[in-house]
Amino acid sequence: MNGDLILLGHGSGGKLSHQLLDQLIIPSLSGVSLTGQNDAAVVDHEGSRLAFTTDSYVVDPIFFPGGNIGDLAVNGTVNDLAMVGARPLHMSVGLIIEEGFSRSDLSVILASMRSAADLAGVAIVTGDTKVVPRGKADRIFINTSGIGILEHQLHISGSGARVGDKIIINGTIGDHGIAVLAARYGLELVAGIQSDTAALYGLVAELLPEGEYLHVLRDPTRGGVATTLKEIALQSNVTISLQEAALPVKSPVSGVCSILGLDPLHIANEGKLVAVVAADAAERVLAIMRRHPLGLDAAVIGEVVDASAGKMVMETVVGGIRGVDMLTGEQLPRIC
Amino acid sequence: MNGDLILLGHGSGGKLSHQLLDQLIIPSLSGVSLTGQNDAAVVDHEGSRLAFTTDSYVVDPIFFPGGNIGDLAVNGTVNDLAMVGARPLHMSVGLIIEEGFSRSDLSVILASMRSAADLAGVAIVTGDTKVVPRGKADRIFINTSGIGILEHQLHISGSGARVGDKIIINGTIGDHGIAVLAARYGLELVAGIQSDTAALYGLVAELLPEGEYLHVLRDPTRGGVATTLKEIALQSNVTISLQEAALPVKSPVSGVCSILGLDPLHIANEGKLVAVVAADAAERVLAIMRRHPLGLDAAVIGEVVDASAGKMVMETVVGGIRGVDMLTGEQLPRIC
Repeated sequence: MNGDLILLGHGSGGKLSHQLLDQLIIPSLSGVSLTGQNDAAVVDHEGSRLAFTTDSYVVDPIFFPGGNIGDLAVNGTVNDLAMVGARPLHMSVGLIIEEGFSRSDLSVILASMRSAADLAGVAIVTGDTKVVPRGKADRIFINTSGIGILEHQLHISGSGARVGDKIIINGTIGDHGIAVLAARYGLELVAGIQSDTAALYGLVAELLPEGEYLHVLRDPTRGGVATTLKEIALQSNVTISLQEAALPVKSPVSGVCSILGLDPLHIANEGKLVAVVAADAAERVLAIMRRHPLGLDAAVIGEVVDASAGKMVMETVVGGIRGVDMLTGEQLPRIC
Repeated sequence: MNGDLILLGHGSGGKLSHQLLDQLIIPSLSGVSLTGQNDAAVVDHEGSRLAFTTDSYVVDPIFFPGGNIGDLAVNGTVNDLAMVGARPLHMSVGLIIEEGFSRSDLSVILASMRSAADLAGVAIVTGDTKVVPRGKADRIFINTSGIGILEHQLHISGSGARVGDKIIINGTIGDHGIAVLAARYGLELVAGIQSDTAALYGLVAELLPEGEYLHVLRDPTRGGVATTLKEIALQSNVTISLQEAALPVKSPVSGVCSILGLDPLHIANEGKLVAVVAADAAERVLAIMRRHPLGLDAAVIGEVVDASAGKMVMETVVGGIRGVDMLTGEQLPRIC
């Protein structure tokens, strides 16, 4: 029966992913639930707080404009640490390679990992390599796990959003997903769009002195900004209102989305964060972001409007109000 | 050209794996080399020492006598921590699932992971799930990464073996590899053989008070006891001599090996460790092991005989001496 099968959508980061997590994975592996559903777990260690996170990367194609599976895997895990305010320290690399994969491609990917790790200031300290027979994997899958340290006393968590808070993003949305889509299908029309893959801890470190004003940080990867904000709305038990006109979207990205019927709010990003901050601090946070190379296009895109259960609405460019939900099903499989 | 392709043997844990590591992976990801080639990296953290390790599990079939990919993934990573003398604390779980995989199988696997984690005293604190299209993976791959703590001042490392040391194993060899082989090919003749998958930290904790006498600990997984001891011989720059008659092998395992032309010394184990200990302590270590449920069949299987470069020899049952080397190529692919 179909209800018993895992579907592509269960890996989308959207609604089906949440169902699988809530119904099966978290109840089975109980430790996970204890740490909340943040990007990284925070564990106490002899008076200090460590962050620990893992991600597997199965992006297709493995090379795309602006990056490849290697730097994506390093940056993605660095960012999961950064989203709980942790400075990345150590990283592990687990390679699953399909028999017949090219050593030269592997070499390029490893070099990208090394550069990305150096840039992010994280040390790759341990690893593992498995090879499976031809046809039993798709070229290469990479798992990276990371350990970071919280060098402050803040509790940055998806449950921290409060009424009146402003929602800020550090730049344009949808670039990564559309760049991967373009590479996968050889779309000429999106020439020039590059993945935004980047390590965000440098930017986060600039924001940390805002201290108590910094309520939530999260990177809108799988499922896009809509899914991420909906998660925050649910975790914090608030309603988030977005302003469509305020969303920074590059025009080729919005063009492709219009043609293909995709919503940029559901497209993955790999170098973006949404910050939910106290209204008082919004202008300062925006100014700090705009001074950083990864925040030049930062914008306030919405606010927390109501302390009611986990909703999200958007004021559209034509003045209407529409509901916004998590990604349902799988819009663009394997974008990370 | 063929030299440019990754072969199954590159994942064997044997000679080709070492070549790939030494020629490509370690030079590319330099942090790895800094920690030596032990099962886990040991990193200093504010006065304490943490161990960090990762492993991906791609075993085929995913269910086999004595275990499944789930408990294997938990025990394997716990053991990598234990082999540097670290008590396992936290674990991450990264699932890569093929579209169409059964939720009930997933449920059984997750329950096994949970039980294994509880038994080993490790908390699963963070995770990630990816789904790839049908035909792009083989049912399920699992990555586990683990963090442990060293609660002692010892330096247990592959480079610690000294002339005169005794080589001790905690039980019979080859059980895991032959159990998986039997499950894969439906071999009737090996009914009754079970994987030895088990978490070894409990046993290691009993050995740690032997302190300075405990020079090397390593779990002989991929590539088997021969590959593991050869690695130790190379890292410590010594010659290791094994006694064939002393090797504990269950008779159905040696039977299958004879029929199929396999060497039990090259078959993977998942609940075994080899300890290289000072001769003075060998009897005590043996006694400690034999009192533990995972060490009932413990035996001294050889010794370090010479401070010359990285060789291994074996005194055979008929009284001859033969060289023993790492696994070359891939004897039994995907046993973990």
